[in-house]
Amino acid sequence: MRGLDERSTVEEIEKHLRKVDYIIRRKGREILSDFNITIPQFTALQILINKGNMTIGELSKSMALACSTITDLIDRMEKAGLVVRKKDEKDKRVVRIEVLSKGYEILEKVLNKRIEFLSSKLVDFTYEEKVRLSLGLKALYDAMKDEIQ
Amino acid sequence: MRGLDERSTVEEIEKHLRKVDYIIRRKGREILSDFNITIPQFTALQILINKGNMTIGELSKSMALACSTITDLIDRMEKAGLVVRKKDEKDKRVVRIEVLSKGYEILEKVLNKRIEFLSSKLVDFTYEEKVRLSLGLKALYDAMKDEIQ
Repeated sequence: MRGLDERSTVEEIEKHLRKVDYIIRRKGREILSDFNITIPQFTALQILINKGNMTIGELSKSMALACSTITDLIDRMEKAGLVVRKKDEKDKRVVRIEVLSKGYEILEKVLNKRIEFLSSKLVDFTYEEKVRLSLGLKALYDAMKDEIQ
Repeated sequence: MRGLDERSTVEEIEKHLRKVDYIIRRKGREILSDFNITIPQFTALQILINKGNMTIGELSKSMALACSTITDLIDRMEKAGLVVRKKDEKDKRVVRIEVLSKGYEILEKVLNKRIEFLSSKLVDFTYEEKVRLSLGLKALYDAMKDEIQ
């Protein structure tokens, strides 16, 4: 009996994560289009800012996308003034992608809009309910974060 | 003080939802490519199965994508044997998209793979922790589901 319950609980977690994700992504796409950037550009900005300047190869591995796709992506982001290609200080043969101030600003503005959206949806949650949800999601992230390391 | 705490709790929820979403999507893309379907195809399958046969226009509205994009998507899904276009029983001028058994099978297999993945990550959670996370996500979904209605 416990076995069945366990399975259906995980099913419920999967279902609601998937549905919440769908709504947030739809909303997120709206927010991103206001700032004139796409989802992969936003993902790349986050990774480059979190992990520091990367090569095309490193970013390609991190995003699980082909190098040619990443090259196109970075071309467009460079044209938009979000990032710049720079030679590595120590090894001039290596080219790294550096996020420009416009990239940092857009990331911050987009995140703020997402937080505002979520805040408006969580308005009827008690503080304790929010803390509980936050801790649950943190534990879930901690349990799966080795997938991207 | 409470104001600050509330804000940072929502920030934490946003951050961990975004990171969990990123990992699940990466994993999800892997799973989908094993079944030879793309993320938009998977999304369309879910919507068509949940809401019943829709027209291109209705699906376009539901996915917040242009009709031309949806037409291309459905063309490819029809070629892959996932869906079929059918004239509406009541009004022959209206064409609706019907999911075929292959579409149902793939959706079920993909969801099972996603549940297995999540199960493996939740292995160290107690039953109570899983239930708490499940209830928190359900409440979050309930609070935002009017966005897609």
